[in-house]
Amino acid sequence: MSYFRKIIDEMNGYVPGFQPTGTDIVKLNTNENPYPPSPQAVEAIRNFDPTALKRYPQPLGDSFCKTAADVHNVEPDNILCTNGGDDLLTICFRSFCDENRHAAFPGPTYSLYPVLAKLQNCKTVEIPFASDYSLPANPLVESGAAMVIVCNPNAPSGSFIQPAEIKKLADRLKGKSILLIDEAYADFAESNCVPLIKECENVIILRSMSKGYSLAGLRFGYAIAPKNIIAGLRKVKDSYNVDALAIATASAAIWDQGYFRENVEKVKAERSRLTAALREMQLEVRDSQTNFILAGCTNSDAGKVYEDLAKQNIYVRYFKLEGLEDKLRITIGTKEQNDKLIQALKKIL
Amino acid sequence: MSYFRKIIDEMNGYVPGFQPTGTDIVKLNTNENPYPPSPQAVEAIRNFDPTALKRYPQPLGDSFCKTAADVHNVEPDNILCTNGGDDLLTICFRSFCDENRHAAFPGPTYSLYPVLAKLQNCKTVEIPFASDYSLPANPLVESGAAMVIVCNPNAPSGSFIQPAEIKKLADRLKGKSILLIDEAYADFAESNCVPLIKECENVIILRSMSKGYSLAGLRFGYAIAPKNIIAGLRKVKDSYNVDALAIATASAAIWDQGYFRENVEKVKAERSRLTAALREMQLEVRDSQTNFILAGCTNSDAGKVYEDLAKQNIYVRYFKLEGLEDKLRITIGTKEQNDKLIQALKKIL
Repeated sequence: MSYFRKIIDEMNGYVPGFQPTGTDIVKLNTNENPYPPSPQAVEAIRNFDPTALKRYPQPLGDSFCKTAADVHNVEPDNILCTNGGDDLLTICFRSFCDENRHAAFPGPTYSLYPVLAKLQNCKTVEIPFASDYSLPANPLVESGAAMVIVCNPNAPSGSFIQPAEIKKLADRLKGKSILLIDEAYADFAESNCVPLIKECENVIILRSMSKGYSLAGLRFGYAIAPKNIIAGLRKVKDSYNVDALAIATASAAIWDQGYFRENVEKVKAERSRLTAALREMQLEVRDSQTNFILAGCTNSDAGKVYEDLAKQNIYVRYFKLEGLEDKLRITIGTKEQNDKLIQALKKIL
Repeated sequence: MSYFRKIIDEMNGYVPGFQPTGTDIVKLNTNENPYPPSPQAVEAIRNFDPTALKRYPQPLGDSFCKTAADVHNVEPDNILCTNGGDDLLTICFRSFCDENRHAAFPGPTYSLYPVLAKLQNCKTVEIPFASDYSLPANPLVESGAAMVIVCNPNAPSGSFIQPAEIKKLADRLKGKSILLIDEAYADFAESNCVPLIKECENVIILRSMSKGYSLAGLRFGYAIAPKNIIAGLRKVKDSYNVDALAIATASAAIWDQGYFRENVEKVKAERSRLTAALREMQLEVRDSQTNFILAGCTNSDAGKVYEDLAKQNIYVRYFKLEGLEDKLRITIGTKEQNDKLIQALKKIL
């Protein structure tokens, strides 16, 4: 006899990427930023008065909302702080979806979406991307979903859809569906959809401090959306979903746009170099607008390459999923890390 | 036209206790600990390597699980780390309840339960406490709930039910319902139900680092439960629900049992003193096993007393709820804070 709901018993939980420990490891498997967080974020931790922890934090993370609003040229009430971007995904599934209100998204994409849908007992419609990863707008609109999610740039493809295309989709969904644009990787893209929240009543932008701001360990993400949408999401979030130390640290990090941009440029430069190097080895690599690349192993067994790399303490991500069984997702590391990967791959291939 | 589910539109969000800012405020309204966190927790923050934040945290908070298991004489797989105790409440509602599986609890109690139930579209049965706050076991068993919650010690009454009584309830619910024992305030009680998890397959204990460990601002709570229950809850929690800084800080705090006990004893001594002082003023105060007391204003208007105190920058909690309209919930402060409250009340009453 189980005490759990049937859907919980039947489901498998989400499996986070393998977290190897130890020194001398080249960790390119979970899309973390290889550079440290902003010195101002470090200062915020150092200067934080631990006595303040005896008090509850700001329920809405006001100081972060103000800073983020400034950075994005919106108002603080357009911002919702969340315990990582994943917390926002959970909040959105609970706000918009249930057994009678399904979700739709192009795929393959972030593998957490179907897990969260299952928890909410909501059906999902995954519309397969065409080989050029263009937006499958018609089937998304026709799906009748209460929530459409577009991960842009998309993981694990690294592909990018122009904001103008997404705007057209939002307009077609107006009055029918919320459009959640998962911009977890937008820091590394040529453009983003933030301006849409002033034009489209049904758009929510997801942002993360994990990638561009090197704060995956802090768990801090946020939504940018029209005010009435933010007000609704606030009813669904946990009362105090972000902690006081995280609010202070994330606020300092997002305020330091100079460091952030410099860091992002370094990742992008290495992305170009790594892409070229892998193409030279006859791997099939699309241009990426993220901090990772998806490499197709046309002349070799991707699973075997993954294992051979792991034996040398170089970790990349291999998904045993349809459409991805011949590919490796490789996070952009530092120059040194990428060099080690390139050297190892040259021997393996 | 709303994009939200109907139940979200219809519901009111939870309203956290008022968080006054400014110096010279006596804040006795949200059951925070008046003393600072453990010096070892402070050291953990100071010694934390911020560079580590670029990596994702341990998905299960392993280091906290190990330490907490040691403290409670259970195994690490009996522990689930959560983003505050509220995160665990959310996880439990999502694990056990839905439109066909309702929740039951004695009341009045923690006002978040019905809000979380509403989010999960699940009905709630609130069984009124008798005036002696004894456990209403029969109606709880007969409610047919999928999840029974007993807040013990209870808020806002401060009352306590003996573990032997709760064990009998767990036995009667076996094979039918999960029993969630919300021990957020157990650090200040004479006993607790942790040993039950070795005897009862259907018991989950909720613990919080907010009260006894002075870490309300950190958002850290945990479940203690049989291993297969913990395994199920892990499927429902967010993939990385506790952050690396919080794991390190909470681990250090729970490890420092000496400081913790000393701190708890100080609160309990002040609780006795404040209880006696308020009784002298003809307020009706039950013995409390928490870090707050519930004071009945038999000869005065509780709402007016609340306002008069607030004017003097002394904040207590007043619930405009049935059965509570003549009462004030007062958090135990430092000796100085309690003295200020006593002086102010003497003038007002």
